[in-house]
Amino acid sequence: MLQGKVLVAQGGGPTAVINQSMVGAVLEARKFRNVSLVYGALHGVQGIVNEDFVDLTQETTHNLEMVAETPSSALGSTRDKPDLKYCRQILKVLQAHDIRYFFYIGGNDSSDTMRIVADEARQANHPIRCIHIPKTIDNDLVLNDHTPGFPSAARFVVQSFLGANLDNRSLPGVYIAVVMGRHAGFLTAASALGKKFPDDGPHMIYVPERTFRMDEYLSDVRRIYDRYGRCIIAASEGIHDETGTPIITRFAKKVEHDAHGNVQLSGSGALAQLLGDQVKEKLGINRVRGDTFGYLQRSFIGCVSDVDQREAREVGEKAVQYAMWGDTDGSVTIERTGYYSVDYKLMPLEAVAGKTRTMPDEFISDSGTDVTDAFRLYLRPLLGKAMPDAFRLRHSKVAKVLG
Amino acid sequence: MLQGKVLVAQGGGPTAVINQSMVGAVLEARKFRNVSLVYGALHGVQGIVNEDFVDLTQETTHNLEMVAETPSSALGSTRDKPDLKYCRQILKVLQAHDIRYFFYIGGNDSSDTMRIVADEARQANHPIRCIHIPKTIDNDLVLNDHTPGFPSAARFVVQSFLGANLDNRSLPGVYIAVVMGRHAGFLTAASALGKKFPDDGPHMIYVPERTFRMDEYLSDVRRIYDRYGRCIIAASEGIHDETGTPIITRFAKKVEHDAHGNVQLSGSGALAQLLGDQVKEKLGINRVRGDTFGYLQRSFIGCVSDVDQREAREVGEKAVQYAMWGDTDGSVTIERTGYYSVDYKLMPLEAVAGKTRTMPDEFISDSGTDVTDAFRLYLRPLLGKAMPDAFRLRHSKVAKVLG
Repeated sequence: MLQGKVLVAQGGGPTAVINQSMVGAVLEARKFRNVSLVYGALHGVQGIVNEDFVDLTQETTHNLEMVAETPSSALGSTRDKPDLKYCRQILKVLQAHDIRYFFYIGGNDSSDTMRIVADEARQANHPIRCIHIPKTIDNDLVLNDHTPGFPSAARFVVQSFLGANLDNRSLPGVYIAVVMGRHAGFLTAASALGKKFPDDGPHMIYVPERTFRMDEYLSDVRRIYDRYGRCIIAASEGIHDETGTPIITRFAKKVEHDAHGNVQLSGSGALAQLLGDQVKEKLGINRVRGDTFGYLQRSFIGCVSDVDQREAREVGEKAVQYAMWGDTDGSVTIERTGYYSVDYKLMPLEAVAGKTRTMPDEFISDSGTDVTDAFRLYLRPLLGKAMPDAFRLRHSKVAKVLG
Repeated sequence: MLQGKVLVAQGGGPTAVINQSMVGAVLEARKFRNVSLVYGALHGVQGIVNEDFVDLTQETTHNLEMVAETPSSALGSTRDKPDLKYCRQILKVLQAHDIRYFFYIGGNDSSDTMRIVADEARQANHPIRCIHIPKTIDNDLVLNDHTPGFPSAARFVVQSFLGANLDNRSLPGVYIAVVMGRHAGFLTAASALGKKFPDDGPHMIYVPERTFRMDEYLSDVRRIYDRYGRCIIAASEGIHDETGTPIITRFAKKVEHDAHGNVQLSGSGALAQLLGDQVKEKLGINRVRGDTFGYLQRSFIGCVSDVDQREAREVGEKAVQYAMWGDTDGSVTIERTGYYSVDYKLMPLEAVAGKTRTMPDEFISDSGTDVTDAFRLYLRPLLGKAMPDAFRLRHSKVAKVLG
């Protein structure tokens, strides 16, 4: 085992359980005698190049456990997506601080950073173990049955649709909710598990794995509305036309871009507004409401899956075990081994890095606007214990007197 | 005691606990021997004039209990605000069905309907007890310490801001969240209880009880952003300028109206968008995100205050007891009798009907953009048990090596 310091960092969008992974890694690392100190980098790779380190060796176990239960990255995060030069700077700092174990909790971009840093370290002949710990509410990491953070975000989406459906049933109209997910529709698809009775919403689910056609959308809304007097739609923020152009770009007047030059999809209610306006204008339906779940879905406190918590903790712990007892870099992955149980593996960084997983065809119905039972079976155990449930009155109608 | 049928109905925007009141009234009414049957009206007063009644005498206690725990109006609701003619039609139907006890669960409009119906019944010499059962997430009924539905919605708002603050701390920027409340700022003010550490958001809270000035808003955002590198804003959908014109009307291009001719405030992300655009354009801050809590805040399942559940149940039960053992119409109100305990009273319908309560001055800070400790004390017990809490790492900084 290498002798030296351990560094833990968190990257990308926060999740409700990302601190479980951080605490899992920190507590496990503190057990090893070859580890001199356990550092955390503030705001991910940005904190590394700025030498913004904190010493987590001197934090109580008790407070670490409380932080583990707190959503969002306690060390701070970053949207920086390092290039080769940036990664060389990272390595320089790791060397200067005698860091021999580097754990980065994040999504595709973070795994790609780890791949480059590990390559550079090998070439520079600096022995260091680089382990990527998976995290993303989008559930879009390859080789993983699912990723920590997704189950809790999915649970929030399910509970939101359960409530939204009850609300819409009480005051009928068209209701559109926009869910996060640029390329992968898993989180939007989760809305299907908010459906209990056959006439419950969501009645249509639009994911980025399928082409969105405005005319088909409008005729679907018309059909459902005429049937039930109401209609609930779940739409991924990343839905796009046949050329791959996001719907938000195609119909909106003004488009914003994020730090990576991608079209800004979250943080505004523009898509829900647009989809609602089309229903009002083209179908003449009056009561149309749109919500954008926004940042609530990834950091909501008090709506966490216990399965997600446990697994997020374990991937952090396993990462340290792989780093100490194994002798390779890699990305920790989740494999489903039973219904329901999981085990973890260490995959080569280049097998995971920078790749995007989307929903397999078997999870999407032929109509393209619903999920299959295979998806329902896949998701159900991830949501965890004590899922709220919705009940209806089963009443007999009273005969009219006045008529 | 009058001999005949009981009718229960639900009106206005749903809440997470409105079914507790309905079930409280139904179960209590089913105990009385002078009650022949217990009816529910589908979609409030609209269901009454259409004779859309269901028989709740033949529903199991068990299922009623499950429905009580389910958010949103199980009988359906309505936005109809009956005038005199409409109320006479209501009375005609009540007479035709031999209804002698009428319980309407709702807000100001519903209490006003009850006032008119009760007046008309007296004039028509039709003995009937009309009891209004309070409900509204806006917390804007006079003579009530608070109203059922508000505590659970407030809890959702608190938990949302707890999470949003953690998210914003991890990826800093300006974050704006728009909360429901046309005239009363209670629900938006609840966001203050999501604040734990001194630098936590929300940093500014804008309620309809104070005039919103765009220039002051922008300079406040500038000040906080320069200090903390981030800024979180809670804004009521009803914020308005010095003439009372909603900000959404004043700066938006297109304005929609609801069924009552009021400017449509909910169901779109327009205000959050507007407040965010101003920050980007006038202050040149790049990362600006806006969320509108929308319908989630009033019907979210699994984030309910146990205090709210209990009280909502009791106002329903008390309503029946007042109707049976007393001999007057009225509106059930909640009075705070200890810290924390409540008792219920029956107030004359005309004392509550159609009146709007707003936040008292003692709940709003001198700055006009924060709450006072009096408000924090007021709200805290209403949120109920097992409120989630947020924890931070207490780490010591590591000295730089490269510098």
